[in-house]
Amino acid sequence: MSKQELPLVDAGQACCAPLVCAPLTEAEAGELAPLFKAIGDPVRLRLLSLIACHEGGEACVCDLTDAFELTPPTISHHLKVLKQAGLIDSQRRGTWVYYWLNPGVLERLSAVLGPRALVSA
Amino acid sequence: MSKQELPLVDAGQACCAPLVCAPLTEAEAGELAPLFKAIGDPVRLRLLSLIACHEGGEACVCDLTDAFELTPPTISHHLKVLKQAGLIDSQRRGTWVYYWLNPGVLERLSAVLGPRALVSA
Repeated sequence: MSKQELPLVDAGQACCAPLVCAPLTEAEAGELAPLFKAIGDPVRLRLLSLIACHEGGEACVCDLTDAFELTPPTISHHLKVLKQAGLIDSQRRGTWVYYWLNPGVLERLSAVLGPRALVSA
Repeated sequence: MSKQELPLVDAGQACCAPLVCAPLTEAEAGELAPLFKAIGDPVRLRLLSLIACHEGGEACVCDLTDAFELTPPTISHHLKVLKQAGLIDSQRRGTWVYYWLNPGVLERLSAVLGPRALVSA
């Protein structure tokens, strides 16, 4: 949805309810909820965090598995869920697959929950 | 394909990965993930949004059910999930139960995903 399609925000409401407000549409909620669901798991949330914090903003599975007491297939499963949700992308280089955050996705989710949020993304 | 044959990571990526970084701890991820999971459902995301956007920042079930083609017990179930996660609180007043967002919780989640985030909450 373009910004132009959104209703104007009533500046006066800002004092009482920081979440200024035109409720999310069904379509917006349907698009955003799977992203939140994908990060609604402690392993996946940590994986995202580890990838984001890794040097250069990308990490290979070999960098990630040591942080968990989980098998490589389990880690790979969680990475697949994050990738299918569009939160990360990956590329195989030689032996390893490298992962990085898709730019803008977390920022969008952050904005949706932020102080002028639950409006539109 | 050897690593040498691949282009170096574009230094410009720094612009796209503003997530500054000490990764979330296991305890932090364990605490935050259930909150994201609770909003990882389109009905619950819209309920949060509708409550946040309702006049005075609170809404009764009677204000919320009309937005959905769902039965009142289903709406109540989703509200219960949001409440159990600590995202909203409620109070019965006469016939109706009123709901409002717990202050600071969404802001915290927003911050966790935000530009200097995935660090700590």
